[in-house]
Amino acid sequence: MALDIVQLQQRLREFSAERDWDQFHTPKNLACALSVEAAELLELFQWLNDEQAQTAPQQPEFATRLGEEISDVLLYLLRLADVTGIDLAAVVERKIALNALKYPAEQARGHARKYDQL
Amino acid sequence: MALDIVQLQQRLREFSAERDWDQFHTPKNLACALSVEAAELLELFQWLNDEQAQTAPQQPEFATRLGEEISDVLLYLLRLADVTGIDLAAVVERKIALNALKYPAEQARGHARKYDQL
Amino acid sequence: MALDIVQLQQRLREFSAERDWDQFHTPKNLACALSVEAAELLELFQWLNDEQAQTAPQQPEFATRLGEEISDVLLYLLRLADVTGIDLAAVVERKIALNALKYPAEQARGHARKYDQL
Amino acid sequence: MALDIVQLQQRLREFSAERDWDQFHTPKNLACALSVEAAELLELFQWLNDEQAQTAPQQPEFATRLGEEISDVLLYLLRLADVTGIDLAAVVERKIALNALKYPAEQARGHARKYDQL
Repeated sequence: MALDIVQLQQRLREFSAERDWDQFHTPKNLACALSVEAAELLELFQWLNDEQAQTAPQQPEFATRLGEEISDVLLYLLRLADVTGIDLAAVVERKIALNALKYPAEQARGHARKYDQL
Repeated sequence: MALDIVQLQQRLREFSAERDWDQFHTPKNLACALSVEAAELLELFQWLNDEQAQTAPQQPEFATRLGEEISDVLLYLLRLADVTGIDLAAVVERKIALNALKYPAEQARGHARKYDQL
Repeated sequence: MALDIVQLQQRLREFSAERDWDQFHTPKNLACALSVEAAELLELFQWLNDEQAQTAPQQPEFATRLGEEISDVLLYLLRLADVTGIDLAAVVERKIALNALKYPAEQARGHARKYDQL
Repeated sequence: MALDIVQLQQRLREFSAERDWDQFHTPKNLACALSVEAAELLELFQWLNDEQAQTAPQQPEFATRLGEEISDVLLYLLRLADVTGIDLAAVVERKIALNALKYPAEQARGHARKYDQL
């Protein structure tokens, strides 16, 4: 199934308008909500060791909860981009190009050092 | 510009493989990275009052940084969904339907109470 | 009432030992838990505007929940310092001295710019 | 070295007043800052596997950075408690008692299930 970002943003806009929620969906509040949802996703993994965290997403119940938290993060992110007028496709292309410059394959291979420590 | 999620995930897969980074991109590490990036986005707003936070995204420099942080969150989210085998389009549809059930327009209108307090 | 940090850490050590939880209280897991609890605290404020957020802590029910979340953050922080052997009093003194250097009163007065932009 | 919480809060109050920062130290802003700092702490661990995360705090350079991040979280937490009028010692005692009720040693031993799943 394909994900139509522009259409999703339109649906979120309507969802918010129908509930008179635009007053809450300020950029700062949405940035807060995004951090809160990202933390709820992290909570699923917080006590799992490496091995457990690797296999947990194969369990149906865990996968369902993970899917819900991933969705919550994505929906707030789309909403934030929408209310702030950020063109998601454009900024993502730009960021991927930046990452390729900051992390050349040769220097970055096999370790997780930050770009300023390569 | 349209955003092709499936193609983006493919590009991230190649980006990681070329750098031998799959060893770092475990579900738990990506969940951590997601929270870290969401917090970097929040940092842009942390000292702004409501009014400042509302207008800041109209400033080009702020918008550029916001676009970068939004991209970071999105890219880690796509990567996490990819390595855990989550079908983004399917879980998002399901979550939107759940939200519509949890927050009927009539009961949810004009306030931000949680669904279990409606 | 005074807060005895060293004694608190001793009590948390016993609480964990009695439940055989030391296996979960690894530095990384506690760092995750800390972010999760900080986000639960943030959640209390996420939809409040500046004025509401200012007065909410005066409401008894809100204050109770805020107190619980503040406690959760503090307890995980104390536990993390304990399992990693960090001397809280020493690092806090050092950080306050660093902050005084990074943010001289004259240059930092009245704005929230980061030290590298003073 | 002992940590005097009340005295620390007094010093932070003065630090903020000297810089005219009280205007920024609203409850919501401090809650944001707390999440941001908790994420900076988490960032130190994000790409480490279990074994690396366990030994990293023994390296002096890592321990220094960890101490700084732990301090940042603690200082914002003390400041938040101060501006919201939360009595830290009282809420912490109450939370420890709650945790003992929610997680009786017998039922909670050896696993990390949430209290509502015991």
